[in-house]
Amino acid sequence: MRNEWNLWVVGGDMRQAKLAELLAEDGHTVHTWALEGAEEAVEPAERLEEARLADCVILPLPAAGEGGRLNAPLSALHPSLEEVLDALRPGQVVCAGKVGPGLRALAEERGLRLFDYFLREELAVANAVPTAEGAVQLAMEELPVTLHGARVLVLGFGRLGKLTAHRMHALGARVSVAARKWADLAWAEAYGYVPEHIEHLDGYLCPYDMVVNTVPVRVLDEARLADLKPGCLVVDLASKPGGVDLEAAGRLGVRVIWALSLPGKVAPVTAGKIIRDTIYHILNELGG
Amino acid sequence: MRNEWNLWVVGGDMRQAKLAELLAEDGHTVHTWALEGAEEAVEPAERLEEARLADCVILPLPAAGEGGRLNAPLSALHPSLEEVLDALRPGQVVCAGKVGPGLRALAEERGLRLFDYFLREELAVANAVPTAEGAVQLAMEELPVTLHGARVLVLGFGRLGKLTAHRMHALGARVSVAARKWADLAWAEAYGYVPEHIEHLDGYLCPYDMVVNTVPVRVLDEARLADLKPGCLVVDLASKPGGVDLEAAGRLGVRVIWALSLPGKVAPVTAGKIIRDTIYHILNELGG
Amino acid sequence: MRNEWNLWVVGGDMRQAKLAELLAEDGHTVHTWALEGAEEAVEPAERLEEARLADCVILPLPAAGEGGRLNAPLSALHPSLEEVLDALRPGQVVCAGKVGPGLRALAEERGLRLFDYFLREELAVANAVPTAEGAVQLAMEELPVTLHGARVLVLGFGRLGKLTAHRMHALGARVSVAARKWADLAWAEAYGYVPEHIEHLDGYLCPYDMVVNTVPVRVLDEARLADLKPGCLVVDLASKPGGVDLEAAGRLGVRVIWALSLPGKVAPVTAGKIIRDTIYHILNELGG
Amino acid sequence: MRNEWNLWVVGGDMRQAKLAELLAEDGHTVHTWALEGAEEAVEPAERLEEARLADCVILPLPAAGEGGRLNAPLSALHPSLEEVLDALRPGQVVCAGKVGPGLRALAEERGLRLFDYFLREELAVANAVPTAEGAVQLAMEELPVTLHGARVLVLGFGRLGKLTAHRMHALGARVSVAARKWADLAWAEAYGYVPEHIEHLDGYLCPYDMVVNTVPVRVLDEARLADLKPGCLVVDLASKPGGVDLEAAGRLGVRVIWALSLPGKVAPVTAGKIIRDTIYHILNELGG
Repeated sequence: MRNEWNLWVVGGDMRQAKLAELLAEDGHTVHTWALEGAEEAVEPAERLEEARLADCVILPLPAAGEGGRLNAPLSALHPSLEEVLDALRPGQVVCAGKVGPGLRALAEERGLRLFDYFLREELAVANAVPTAEGAVQLAMEELPVTLHGARVLVLGFGRLGKLTAHRMHALGARVSVAARKWADLAWAEAYGYVPEHIEHLDGYLCPYDMVVNTVPVRVLDEARLADLKPGCLVVDLASKPGGVDLEAAGRLGVRVIWALSLPGKVAPVTAGKIIRDTIYHILNELGG
Repeated sequence: MRNEWNLWVVGGDMRQAKLAELLAEDGHTVHTWALEGAEEAVEPAERLEEARLADCVILPLPAAGEGGRLNAPLSALHPSLEEVLDALRPGQVVCAGKVGPGLRALAEERGLRLFDYFLREELAVANAVPTAEGAVQLAMEELPVTLHGARVLVLGFGRLGKLTAHRMHALGARVSVAARKWADLAWAEAYGYVPEHIEHLDGYLCPYDMVVNTVPVRVLDEARLADLKPGCLVVDLASKPGGVDLEAAGRLGVRVIWALSLPGKVAPVTAGKIIRDTIYHILNELGG
Repeated sequence: MRNEWNLWVVGGDMRQAKLAELLAEDGHTVHTWALEGAEEAVEPAERLEEARLADCVILPLPAAGEGGRLNAPLSALHPSLEEVLDALRPGQVVCAGKVGPGLRALAEERGLRLFDYFLREELAVANAVPTAEGAVQLAMEELPVTLHGARVLVLGFGRLGKLTAHRMHALGARVSVAARKWADLAWAEAYGYVPEHIEHLDGYLCPYDMVVNTVPVRVLDEARLADLKPGCLVVDLASKPGGVDLEAAGRLGVRVIWALSLPGKVAPVTAGKIIRDTIYHILNELGG
Repeated sequence: MRNEWNLWVVGGDMRQAKLAELLAEDGHTVHTWALEGAEEAVEPAERLEEARLADCVILPLPAAGEGGRLNAPLSALHPSLEEVLDALRPGQVVCAGKVGPGLRALAEERGLRLFDYFLREELAVANAVPTAEGAVQLAMEELPVTLHGARVLVLGFGRLGKLTAHRMHALGARVSVAARKWADLAWAEAYGYVPEHIEHLDGYLCPYDMVVNTVPVRVLDEARLADLKPGCLVVDLASKPGGVDLEAAGRLGVRVIWALSLPGKVAPVTAGKIIRDTIYHILNELGG
């Protein structure tokens, strides 16, 4: 049913190495480049130029490393993104993660068909699973109580909020969810959590053993941090600028873990699978 | 914290009667009219004209019954919507469910501030809970096997799909979810269901003991119905026109239950609570 | 892997009819007798005498009907148990449910190897699943609120208590469990329910929307019944003498449903499967 | 309702320190001795002799450390058990964990009423919760995939097996349970796990990402270890001698974590609470 493709995985970390393996297991012809440090990797290609034959060239997440170079921490090669793209042919399909304006411009100049898989909703949803598990792992490592019976407040009820609350609840935590929209609070209640309006949290933060933030605005300011129970653990899953006043937290002695990019850290194989599935969706939609 | 209001509940079925009770229990001054057949009801008012004093007049769901009259199945009164609105004062707040163009025009002519609580997202989410329970109840009543271990296919992964799948899974059913969007399928997988692309169902419908449809387009046409396992139960939760070719189902001997308006039927008290909460949200947003 | 056997299913209700079908589907040679009224049944045998050739003769659950006759409600035949056993050969394996002293004596006289599958622990555990689902179904049918959010008290934490609490909790009910042993209460807490010592219930019964009893002693006496919230539903799953003072309940207007033998009623196919699996275990242990 | 007691917590680790705190929070008069290294501890007593006045003296879990001394890793004192017991009065109630024959003899000689709280079933059940969470934590730390979607085999279905399977399943793992008794397998199935007879595992161990053993006999011998998928994680929760041939595992390169005494390690506060509750049960049963 699925086509067999010629795929190049160029640069990246363990996720990309696993991605290459998984693609090969599915029967595709797979080459890697600038991934030679990953022992598990598919046999690395010698010359990037052969990537011109690929049905799709897959760049890492994020595609760009420091100084406009390819993000390739496992490789001794340090090519610029320009060098990488120069090796490709006009019209070729390139999939990359977190494409910035620089990479986009370079791709356009060369007539490449560039797709940002990190913008795909299904990747964001799927990545929320390892992120939520990472939050559970942090809680288990840091808290002197079991999650079973612990009182956990989840701030925000988007992708991360939903799946984190789900897993905490499944483990027997008593989960409250704070959100702004009534519909989100209705969802929280429908799944069995205690709904709290996020505007009415002041003065009600003391019962929690753990607060997980998923909202990328300053939800936990000094006053709210001061209201937390001593020993309460704060895990911030929100992307920059995060939701916690870290300076105030330091002053108050509140333990905060700002946990970014958890999928690649806690479950690189799963993270690789998620990228694989998303690449398949992109290629299928292109009529691949 | 919450204000005390003067509230009128006018017309409606058991949900509205329960609503009146619940509002009274919360400390509001509550009058009912055209609800006198509900034994549980708050003491009915004698004259609708006094509703002019109300902070809010609450009409039923749906507000309109047959022939442009108030929907008031428990009452011996059969007023037209016009008569009801004529008793109110300009500027008065009126909450009603499933407001049609006729009622809206009448309200505008009279300068009433009309709000359709059925359009509120939080009511739709909250109502999905009794609907999903209703689907579980139907499954338990109709199937000769336990839901535990049964194979259940849920078509669509919006509000009803999510909450129905959640409950079936919680009871030990093996749940598959079919949807069109990759992101929906990623959600289904994140919650532990087997994702199936809805376009690729043909020829794969035979293993299921039950199919729950939530998509209001003809998903189950004759070919797909013919593909179902003998004895498979189909529950259609989709609003009109529904998702099942009923005629073909009849011809093929497929058991189909088209279950509409479940909340009021299976859990009238819960349905009344949901309306109450939504009315509160509306009034609070008005600065009540 | 599994042997093919010659099996006779003699007497019984829909469960036995389904059992015969399931055994046939597994590749065994199956005959039925005194089951001819079940349309789904395997082709009925003409002469019971041929059952002498069977590897195992399966009698119903319970084996005995009224007046020492075979329990065969779907049949026009009304043989005595004696007649049935007379048709068998000494040493033959007979499996029957709820074997009384009369049947046991008859079997011994004839040198039959009689096994009571109803005494098998695995059957009791497996049957607790449809029973728990039956309790959920009753709750959904009877309560005017959703189980989601309802307060449910489960009395006893044996097989039925465990699986009923599990399913109620899974549907979003707030489940309390009352038991006598600290270890049972620790189990209840480990699964996320509120533990209550059964001796300390007096005066604390008013918050519940539903009470499910699984203890076959008079737990709900008049004083406790009087303490229930008006409208509270009581479902008694305990075998005779049951746990509820039914007379007092009637006087007090408490709704009580004494629900016995639920598996055969709510899920006859599942009930048939459970008997099948247990028969297989017995035959395998005999080295079959 | 609960009495106020004079309680001494003598020796122990962080669990015992937390226990002292929790007892004090409940309003009891609490003294500690040989726990002075725990910062959180209740003010330490100066003279052990005053423990004669206690309603109950609580020794640690296990009570005995090396060389017949009190188990007191947080203390600079290294008293023998004899010295500790000599300070008490005949007839006094002493609660201790994992009482060995030596301690029991010493207590009898002195006419003390010694109770082993570690033998209480409710403590064993309650401790299974932090143990199961510890197994989840190890899985999350060690596996490169998410538990969500992972295939996990649990060996044994007693306390640890039940609660570990429950949590893995709740997190979206596909859980199989292997046990010997049909009734245990029926329980496993009733909770939604795939049942596998433990005698029929040979040749079927390759699909699992993780195996959790809870059976204290050599279940995972060399042949079975060799059958595991490369990278499969084995967590052994069984007390000595454990269930894994560690030497063979080392030879085969199978990752095995033999995780003992998890409650005190992963959740010392919860572990302290569990001991507290058990002490209360003992004292209440004594008519305290």
